[in-house]
Amino acid sequence: MAKSILLELLEARNYKELKRLMGEYNPVDLAELLMELNDRDLAIVFRMIEKDKAAEVFSYMDDDQRQTLLDCFTSQEIKHILDSMYTDDAVDLLEDMPANVVNKLLDQVSKDTRADINRLLNYPEDSAGSIMTVEYVDLSPDMTVRQALQKIRTIGIHSETVYTCYVIVQRKLVGIITAQALMTNDEDVQVKDLMEENFIFIRTTDDREDAAKLFRRYGLIAIPVLDKEGFIVGIVTFDDAIGVLTEETTEDIHKMAAISSSEESYLKTSVFQHAKNRIPWLLILMFSATITGAIITKYENAFQVVPILVSFIPMLMDTGGNCGSQSSTLVIRGLAVDELHFSDFFSIVWKEFRVSLIVGIVLAAVNGVRIYLVYGGDVQLAMVVAASLIGTIVVAKMVGCMLPIFAKQLHLDPAIMASPLITTIVDTCSIMIYFRIATLVFRL
Amino acid sequence: MAKSILLELLEARNYKELKRLMGEYNPVDLAELLMELNDRDLAIVFRMIEKDKAAEVFSYMDDDQRQTLLDCFTSQEIKHILDSMYTDDAVDLLEDMPANVVNKLLDQVSKDTRADINRLLNYPEDSAGSIMTVEYVDLSPDMTVRQALQKIRTIGIHSETVYTCYVIVQRKLVGIITAQALMTNDEDVQVKDLMEENFIFIRTTDDREDAAKLFRRYGLIAIPVLDKEGFIVGIVTFDDAIGVLTEETTEDIHKMAAISSSEESYLKTSVFQHAKNRIPWLLILMFSATITGAIITKYENAFQVVPILVSFIPMLMDTGGNCGSQSSTLVIRGLAVDELHFSDFFSIVWKEFRVSLIVGIVLAAVNGVRIYLVYGGDVQLAMVVAASLIGTIVVAKMVGCMLPIFAKQLHLDPAIMASPLITTIVDTCSIMIYFRIATLVFRL
Repeated sequence: MAKSILLELLEARNYKELKRLMGEYNPVDLAELLMELNDRDLAIVFRMIEKDKAAEVFSYMDDDQRQTLLDCFTSQEIKHILDSMYTDDAVDLLEDMPANVVNKLLDQVSKDTRADINRLLNYPEDSAGSIMTVEYVDLSPDMTVRQALQKIRTIGIHSETVYTCYVIVQRKLVGIITAQALMTNDEDVQVKDLMEENFIFIRTTDDREDAAKLFRRYGLIAIPVLDKEGFIVGIVTFDDAIGVLTEETTEDIHKMAAISSSEESYLKTSVFQHAKNRIPWLLILMFSATITGAIITKYENAFQVVPILVSFIPMLMDTGGNCGSQSSTLVIRGLAVDELHFSDFFSIVWKEFRVSLIVGIVLAAVNGVRIYLVYGGDVQLAMVVAASLIGTIVVAKMVGCMLPIFAKQLHLDPAIMASPLITTIVDTCSIMIYFRIATLVFRL
Repeated sequence: MAKSILLELLEARNYKELKRLMGEYNPVDLAELLMELNDRDLAIVFRMIEKDKAAEVFSYMDDDQRQTLLDCFTSQEIKHILDSMYTDDAVDLLEDMPANVVNKLLDQVSKDTRADINRLLNYPEDSAGSIMTVEYVDLSPDMTVRQALQKIRTIGIHSETVYTCYVIVQRKLVGIITAQALMTNDEDVQVKDLMEENFIFIRTTDDREDAAKLFRRYGLIAIPVLDKEGFIVGIVTFDDAIGVLTEETTEDIHKMAAISSSEESYLKTSVFQHAKNRIPWLLILMFSATITGAIITKYENAFQVVPILVSFIPMLMDTGGNCGSQSSTLVIRGLAVDELHFSDFFSIVWKEFRVSLIVGIVLAAVNGVRIYLVYGGDVQLAMVVAASLIGTIVVAKMVGCMLPIFAKQLHLDPAIMASPLITTIVDTCSIMIYFRIATLVFRL
């Protein structure tokens, strides 16, 4: 169903067909489609969605559309939506709203929901607590599989997942049991004989990215969240973890290109916000680059005598920057996916050193021959450029691979040690190497 | 359990305690621990793992260790491991082995497993078919919930997931039903009344990255895979999808730094392979950079008259490169996570144009003032550099945002239009703008 069909049915007031078609739609796709409607149509169409599905569709919409809908909802409708949403989605909705709106909305919901939401709203934004939900299945160790299945039958419909169940004694988590285990074992066996006592868990205060990485590592559907006292307070599910991993990777990629990250999507971010996200690093890098300029000034008389020297500056600077960013990118990504660690420092440096020698020699040879041929057999010039290339590439790769590891060790984000910063640092080195060699060879 | 404890227990021949400790370990962690052992210890310890867990631990190990183990296994052991592994893991194991070893191994397994493995081995490496598995629960529409649960009880233990079940009529997939629906509905209801008929599916020939993106979009646990005729041939599970998303993102990030991707991890890739992955793009970019050099040569007399001009080249080149790569990175990542599309072309260009004007004016103003102060009130010089900065930044951001979108439209990977290539292109433009303005202002 494209937007046009939807609008046609709406125009023709063919609500029956409209409802039927929307029933066939996946909530994610439906949310995307509704977001293309204008405010008036949105409210009309949204009210036609089946009640149980509506809260899910609502949770997939953007803040703007949700605000529009909330503005024209009755308090009864708001209560229904908030009560039907999983707590993590409700928290996600309320987090971006002004405090007075949040209070007004919370007035509408049931007492239990309000308490849950309030508790979750208190966790720091990047913590595991902020992405968890409280709708899980709790079992007790003495239950039989039959009793456990019976409990799931009763409360499972309101749980975000029934596929991992939590065995709890006096609010303490003593084990977890999968629905697969419950469904494939004898009904008279007790839960305590099937449950896994060595389970993976996270703390409310853990970084949400670290929590998300556990899903990637262990392939889990849900992970329990414990508070400081070891009591279970919620669970995080894999779909939220995939979202976090994607967001954190985007943030890393942006940081690697010297951009401060935005919460909003590209198109929703204003021009001024975009500019604000980009200018600070550009200013820092611009001033760092003037150091390279100052070094060049020192060698003014060198390129006044041999002006051709200037024409190799871009090639040297670019190649150095590219070599350095290759190394830093490999290390930054390796650290991000936990493939590389500080303990690998020497293996990495030794590997990069050998790689840089090979790369340097190949590039220097190709370029040396090219210069020799193009500039009428000028051996001296060919040698100067070739030697500078090798020196630049070795330095670039050493700087590129070391800085991200140092950053990580100093608890800085390794992603800032990427292309832009490495390029600026390497520029200075390459210009120094180049003019030092040139003044030596040409006795300037 | 650290490696040292394990080795101590092994030394002391305290096999009972060793077995007990290993029983407590998660298969993923156990695999990582075993990979640190030498070949002889590895074989001894591996044989002590509980049989059901062994295949899972095996599937998490690296190719080298698996090869070591296979070399010292009896055919009985090989048969057990291969039969216990999910087909997708078995295929993953065999894919990287020479054909004669594969045939030898396949001789050991049961006929059914062999047929499954052979079929999966035939799918292209980047296809959805290559990451699917064949162990799923199939139901028929006329079953009651009770019968369905009974079937899961019987075959569920061998399925990679029981949480999504597939309703099949004559090999055609007619609907899917979640375990949650089965567990929370009346036992006498028929499957056909609960199943979802509008389900998400993928084709064997779909790109595995596109398949993985569906998991991110819809938050699914498993997606069915259909062949050309619409018959169901397997399923892909979310844990494999997370793996694919991570791998593909790594590949993109490497490509954005002008590195050809390696299958192996950083440390396992040889120095020569590393060099081979990096040299081609460096050579291309190095030669492109000589164009910028050639342009500089044209303005030789300009910087012989005003030598200070040369010292601003690094700052202009770096800033242009950084600005361009900011834009290209935002667009490349936006395209990768399906947040931006070709239809957004004009909104993106218009947004980047306005951003580039703000960024350009701010940077030019700051730099203009700096030059005015540092170079004793040289207004002409300050004007030349400031104007060149604005021109460079506008061009850089335009080039940076457009090229990735064009690449996508031409079915090229947008990731190649990243920092290194953009920098090289922008360099040429910035040098041309700079010297054109300089020669005009200084009448050179």
